[in-house]
Amino acid sequence: MSGDLHITGIRPMGKAATSVTVRGGRIAAYGEDAPPGMETIDGGDAILIPGLVEAHTHLDKTLLGMGWYRNEVGPRLIDKIENERAEKKRLGIDPARQSARQAVLSVAQGSTAIRSHVDVDTEVGLSGIEGVLRTCEAYRDIVDIEIVAFPQSGMLIRPGTAELMEEALRLGAHVVGGLDPSAIDRDPKGHLDVIFGLAERFGVPVDIHLHEPAELGAFSMELIVERTRALGMQGEVTISHAFCLGMADRDYVASLIDALAEARVHILTTAPASRPVPPVKRLVEAGVVVAAGSDGVRDTWGPYGNADMLERAMLVGLRNNFRRDDEVEMALDVCTYGGARLMGLDGYGIAAGDRADFVLVEGETLAEAVVSRAPRRMVVKNGRVVARSGRALVEAP
Amino acid sequence: MSGDLHITGIRPMGKAATSVTVRGGRIAAYGEDAPPGMETIDGGDAILIPGLVEAHTHLDKTLLGMGWYRNEVGPRLIDKIENERAEKKRLGIDPARQSARQAVLSVAQGSTAIRSHVDVDTEVGLSGIEGVLRTCEAYRDIVDIEIVAFPQSGMLIRPGTAELMEEALRLGAHVVGGLDPSAIDRDPKGHLDVIFGLAERFGVPVDIHLHEPAELGAFSMELIVERTRALGMQGEVTISHAFCLGMADRDYVASLIDALAEARVHILTTAPASRPVPPVKRLVEAGVVVAAGSDGVRDTWGPYGNADMLERAMLVGLRNNFRRDDEVEMALDVCTYGGARLMGLDGYGIAAGDRADFVLVEGETLAEAVVSRAPRRMVVKNGRVVARSGRALVEAP
Ligand SMILES: [Zn+2]
Ligand SMILES: [Zn+2]
Repeated sequence: MSGDLHITGIRPMGKAATSVTVRGGRIAAYGEDAPPGMETIDGGDAILIPGLVEAHTHLDKTLLGMGWYRNEVGPRLIDKIENERAEKKRLGIDPARQSARQAVLSVAQGSTAIRSHVDVDTEVGLSGIEGVLRTCEAYRDIVDIEIVAFPQSGMLIRPGTAELMEEALRLGAHVVGGLDPSAIDRDPKGHLDVIFGLAERFGVPVDIHLHEPAELGAFSMELIVERTRALGMQGEVTISHAFCLGMADRDYVASLIDALAEARVHILTTAPASRPVPPVKRLVEAGVVVAAGSDGVRDTWGPYGNADMLERAMLVGLRNNFRRDDEVEMALDVCTYGGARLMGLDGYGIAAGDRADFVLVEGETLAEAVVSRAPRRMVVKNGRVVARSGRALVEAP
Repeated sequence: MSGDLHITGIRPMGKAATSVTVRGGRIAAYGEDAPPGMETIDGGDAILIPGLVEAHTHLDKTLLGMGWYRNEVGPRLIDKIENERAEKKRLGIDPARQSARQAVLSVAQGSTAIRSHVDVDTEVGLSGIEGVLRTCEAYRDIVDIEIVAFPQSGMLIRPGTAELMEEALRLGAHVVGGLDPSAIDRDPKGHLDVIFGLAERFGVPVDIHLHEPAELGAFSMELIVERTRALGMQGEVTISHAFCLGMADRDYVASLIDALAEARVHILTTAPASRPVPPVKRLVEAGVVVAAGSDGVRDTWGPYGNADMLERAMLVGLRNNFRRDDEVEMALDVCTYGGARLMGLDGYGIAAGDRADFVLVEGETLAEAVVSRAPRRMVVKNGRVVARSGRALVEAP
C-alpha cells in the first residue's frame, strides 16, 4: 500500500522491453534491477501507457447496473432533456451509486482521471453534485474525479439555476459548465456573463457544451474566445463538442482554429459518427489541446458507451479517417496527454518523476492496442495496482 | 454431425425463454421437450438471433495473423491502391490462408454467411479468386462464402482486366463486381457495358463499389438503375458504399431512393464515420434492402476492423444516430435479414423450416446485445455447433 512497485517486462509506449520501478507513488526509474524487498510483478511484455483520461462524461446519469432502459424517446433535443428529468425521478437514478458504478468501470479499463459534468437544475437541485462529490471522495485512491457544475436544462431560461450553480461551486464543484448560450439559453452575452463571472469569483476553469451548428456555433465560439482573452483565462477554458468546427467552410474554420490556439482554449471531442466534428489533426497541428470523452454512457439519451477510453481512441481515429500508425497514435495521445493537459493534471506522464498512473495494455504496437482495444493487463494509480485483467480491485456498488 | 440438436433456455429475438429443436440442419420447432436420444445443450438464457451476415468484405487481403503492418501510406486513393499492389508481393499475402483466417474469425463471432469482393487485376491475375475459392470449399460446412470478382485497380483503364473478370466467373466467382465507373474507370457507359454484359452472360448478380461523391455518384447510380431495369435484373444488383446518398440535397436523395426501391437495387453500407453515408432508416422505410459489412479488416488500407457484425450493427447505429430500441433493432436487422436478402440466402431466418443458422448471444435485450457487442455463447451452422464462447471449433491456418 506504500506506492512502491517493480514491474518487469513492460514496453513503454511500445518501445523496447524494460522494467519500471515505482517509489512513493511516482515513477522512479526504468531498467533498474528489482530493489530488494520491493513487490515485483511480471508485466508480461505488455505496453505501458500513461493512464487514460476520460475528459468528458456524465457520471450522475448513467443507468449502468439498473436493468435495460427501453429508449422510446422523441427525436428533438428538448424531448431528451424533458424525458431525462422525468425519468430521473421515476427510475430513481441515484447519482452517488451510479457515478461510483461508472467510475469503477472506467478504472477497470485504465482511466486514471475523469472530468464529469453533473446536472444542476431547479428540479434535482444539488443532489447530483452531492452524489458525485461522495464518489469523488470515496474513490479518490483509485481515480481523480473532477466535477463540472452543468446547467443541463438551461440556466437563464430556468430562473434559480444560476444561484444553484454558484452553490454547487461553493459545495466543491471544480469547474463551471455552460450550455449552448444561443440555442438553449437564448442570450449568449447573458449566459457568458454568468459563467465567466462565476469562474472569476471562484477561481475555477470553464467547460462549455457547445452543440450549436456552423455559423451559430462559430459566433458563440468567438464570444467565448473573446472572454477568455479579456479575463486572462488562457489555458483555463474548454469548449466541448464544438460541432461548428466540423462545418464545411474551411477558411472560417481556419480562422477559428487560429483564435483557439492563440487564446489557448481547449477542444473536447467525443468523435460522434453522426454529427460534424472538430478536425483533430488540424487542431493538434495548430497547437490546440484536444482531449476526448465518452459523453453519456448508457443513459436515457442513448444506449451506447462503455467508458473505455481506448475504444474512444479508436472512434476518434475512425471519425477522423486516421489510417496511418502515426495518426492512430495521435488519437491515443488525445485520450491520454490531451486529456491531462485539458484537466491540468499535475505530474502526468511516464517519465521518471511523474505520478505512477499508468496502464499495461496487451498488443504488438500502440496502434494495434488502439484498434483492437487490447485487454488491460493492469492499471496502476499512484503506484498501486487498482485493476487487473480488466477488473477493478474495488467492487462497484 | 447429423444436424440434429435440442437447445433449452434460449430467447428467440429476446422474447420469452423456450427451447429450440433442430432436425436435419433445419429449425424443426420451438418449445418441444427434448427428443429422446438427441443431443441437448443448455442455452444459458441467451438470445437466439439468425446468423449474422457479413455482406461486404475483402477476405483476400486481410493481414490477420501476419504481424503488425505499420501503415505509412499516402493520403490519396491511388496511393492506397498502388501501395497495396506492391505490398501484396513484398509481404507475401496468401489469399487462401488469409481468407481462411478471416472466415474463421467471422464464424467465431457469429457470421454464417459472407460476401467477399476479391481482387482481379493484371498483376495478381486470378490468384486471389483461386485462393478464396479454396477457402470457400474448405470451410463450406461452417460458413457460406460468396465471391465477387472485383476490379480493384480499375477495369477499362487496365487493359486485360475485363478478360480476367470473365475468367474469374468461369472459375466459379458468384458475382460480378465493379468500381467507380466515372471516377476510376473514366467511362461510365463502357464500364457498365462490360459489367452488365458479364452478368447477363453468366447469369450472376452485380455488386458495384460506388465511392463517387454527391452529384457524380448520383449520376452513376442513375445509370446503374437504368441498366437494372432495362435488363430485368431487379433484385440482382447491389450498390456498395453509395456515399452519394449521404449528400445534403434531400430532394435529390429522395428521388434516388425512390428509383432504387422501384428497381429493387440493394444498398450495402459499412457505416463509415468519416464519409457521407446512405441514410439507413429512410432507405429501409422506402423498402430498399440495406445490408452491412466490415469492408477491409486490418489490411494495407487501414488498421481497423475485427469482422464482428454485431459491432458493425453498433457502428450502423452510431453513424445513423439510432438511439431508440426500435432503431438499434433496425441496425441489427440490417446485419442479419438485410444481408440475407442482399445475398439471396435460401431458407434464412429463425422460423420453423428455416436453415438452422443461428447465434446465441448473451444480453438482456436485442439492443443491449448490439451496444455491448455481447459475448457469443454459441454459433450453429446447418444445425451443427461451429463456435462456442467466441471461439470457432475449427482452427484457422
Ligand atoms: Zn456532455
Ligand atoms: Zn470494399
